[in-house]
Amino acid sequence: METVYIVKIGGNIIDDAGKLKQFLNDFAQIPGSKILIHGGGKIATEISKSLGIQPQLIEGRRITDANSLKVVIMVYAGLINKNIVAQLQAAQCNAIGLTGADGNCIPAKKRQVGAIDYGFVGDIEASQINVENVQMLLQNGFTPVFAPITHDTTGNLLNTNADTIASTLAVALAPYYNVRLIYCFEKKGVLRDVNDEESLIPEISPSTYPELRENGVIAQGMIPKMDNALQALQQGVKAVYISHADDMLIITNQQKPAGTVLHL
Amino acid sequence: METVYIVKIGGNIIDDAGKLKQFLNDFAQIPGSKILIHGGGKIATEISKSLGIQPQLIEGRRITDANSLKVVIMVYAGLINKNIVAQLQAAQCNAIGLTGADGNCIPAKKRQVGAIDYGFVGDIEASQINVENVQMLLQNGFTPVFAPITHDTTGNLLNTNADTIASTLAVALAPYYNVRLIYCFEKKGVLRDVNDEESLIPEISPSTYPELRENGVIAQGMIPKMDNALQALQQGVKAVYISHADDMLIITNQQKPAGTVLHL
Repeated sequence: METVYIVKIGGNIIDDAGKLKQFLNDFAQIPGSKILIHGGGKIATEISKSLGIQPQLIEGRRITDANSLKVVIMVYAGLINKNIVAQLQAAQCNAIGLTGADGNCIPAKKRQVGAIDYGFVGDIEASQINVENVQMLLQNGFTPVFAPITHDTTGNLLNTNADTIASTLAVALAPYYNVRLIYCFEKKGVLRDVNDEESLIPEISPSTYPELRENGVIAQGMIPKMDNALQALQQGVKAVYISHADDMLIITNQQKPAGTVLHL
Repeated sequence: METVYIVKIGGNIIDDAGKLKQFLNDFAQIPGSKILIHGGGKIATEISKSLGIQPQLIEGRRITDANSLKVVIMVYAGLINKNIVAQLQAAQCNAIGLTGADGNCIPAKKRQVGAIDYGFVGDIEASQINVENVQMLLQNGFTPVFAPITHDTTGNLLNTNADTIASTLAVALAPYYNVRLIYCFEKKGVLRDVNDEESLIPEISPSTYPELRENGVIAQGMIPKMDNALQALQQGVKAVYISHADDMLIITNQQKPAGTVLHL
C-alpha cells in the first residue's frame, strides 16, 4: 500500500511565523502523499478580543457560540489556512486548503447538549469521512490542508478539534493506505517531566499508557490526544508519533528514532 | 465541447442571507460543470471597522494595506466562502471553496505602484491560470467556489477583483469548454436609467458599447465589468450575461431572454 503521512500542527508553531515557515518548508519535503491538519492558536483569541467577543474554554476546548463560530471560520479557514497554503505553494507543495464542508470531506454532527453546551461544535466519525473525495485529491497530486472546521451537511459550519480530525482521517484512510500519523508540537514528545526536554518517553503502548495516566505524567490536553492515537492504532493506522515540529523529517525519513512512538 | 457556466455573484446578494440562500439553491440546480466566484460585500467593511481598521476605496476598488489584507482573507476566503460551500453542499452541489493559492489555480502579480498604491492587490492573466488543476476538479465532479483572493507564488496572498477573476477564468477555460459567463447582481441587467428596472438594455455589442459609455449610461463600477466582458468574448468565451440573480436559471435553462446579453 502507498504511504500517506497525516501531520497535525499545533497552535504554538502556528503563532510563531518563523517556526511555521520552517515547519512548512520541511512538510513540503515529505515525499509522496500527505495531508496537513492545523489548529488555531492565539490568533483566534486575539481577533475575538478585538471584536469584543470573550472566548470561553472548558477542559481545553473552546465553547463555540454563534459569534465565536464566525471568528474561528474567519481565522482557521481563512487567515491561517490560506497563509499555510500560499507558503506551501511557494515551497513547491501543491496544497489545497479545505474545511470538512469542502467536497463534503468531513461531515459532522452538532454535539448534543449535555452537562456542558459546547455550542457549534461538530463530532465526527471515521465511517462518515468522504474517503473517495480525499483520495481523488491525493491521487491527482494535491496536498489537502484541513482547517479544524466541519459541517452538518444542512448548511451549518461547526468547530471540530484538530487532533480529532487528524486521527479520524487517519482511521478512515487506513484501509487504503499505509497511514502514518504525526502530531507535531513544541516539545520533543511525551515527557515524564513537562519541564525537562531530556525526559522523553520514546515509546507508549496500551500496556504502558494506564500507568502514565495514573501517575499524572499524561494529563490535561494530552489525554484526548493519546486516547485518539491509541484508538487509531487499534483501527488500522500503522504508526502514530508525537514529536517536536523540528523532528518531523527525521521521522518521515526513518533515519533514527525521534519523538514518542505509539504502538500496540 | 462541454458547457461550463461561470457565475459571479456580487456583494448585494451576499449581504442578504435570504437572497443568498435562494441564489445558492438556484445555482445548485445548474446542470453539468459550473464555477462560482463571489465578491465581498459589506461584511468585510463591518469587520474592519470593528477591528479599528478604516477601509479605503479608490474608484470602487479597495486599497489593501497589510491589515486590510488580513480582513479580506478572513472574510472572503473564510466566512463568506465557507458559508457558501456549506450551503451548496446542503443543496446537493459538491462545492469546494478555493482561493487562487489553492492548487495554485490563480497565480497573480502584485500590482506595481503607480499614481495609486493599491497595496496588496494581485493582477492576473488568463495565460497564467492553472487550467489543468481547475479542469481536474471539474472532471471529478467538484464545483469550484472562488473567493477573490490570489497569491504571488512566493507565499503572499493578494486581493483581486472578483469580476476580473470571473472573466479571466472564463478566457482561460474557453479553449476547452463552451464557456458561458454570468454576472449576477441586484438589478435586471444594464439599465438605461439606473432607477428604472424597466429600462433594461437587452443586448450590448462592441458597436453599441462606446455610445452607451459616452452617454454615461455605463459608468463607474460597470465600466471595468463591461471592458472585461467584451474582451472575454473576443478571446473565445461563448456568451456573457449581466443579470439579476433571480434570473440566472432562466438564462441557464435558455427558455427565454433575460438580463443583458453581450455579444460580438
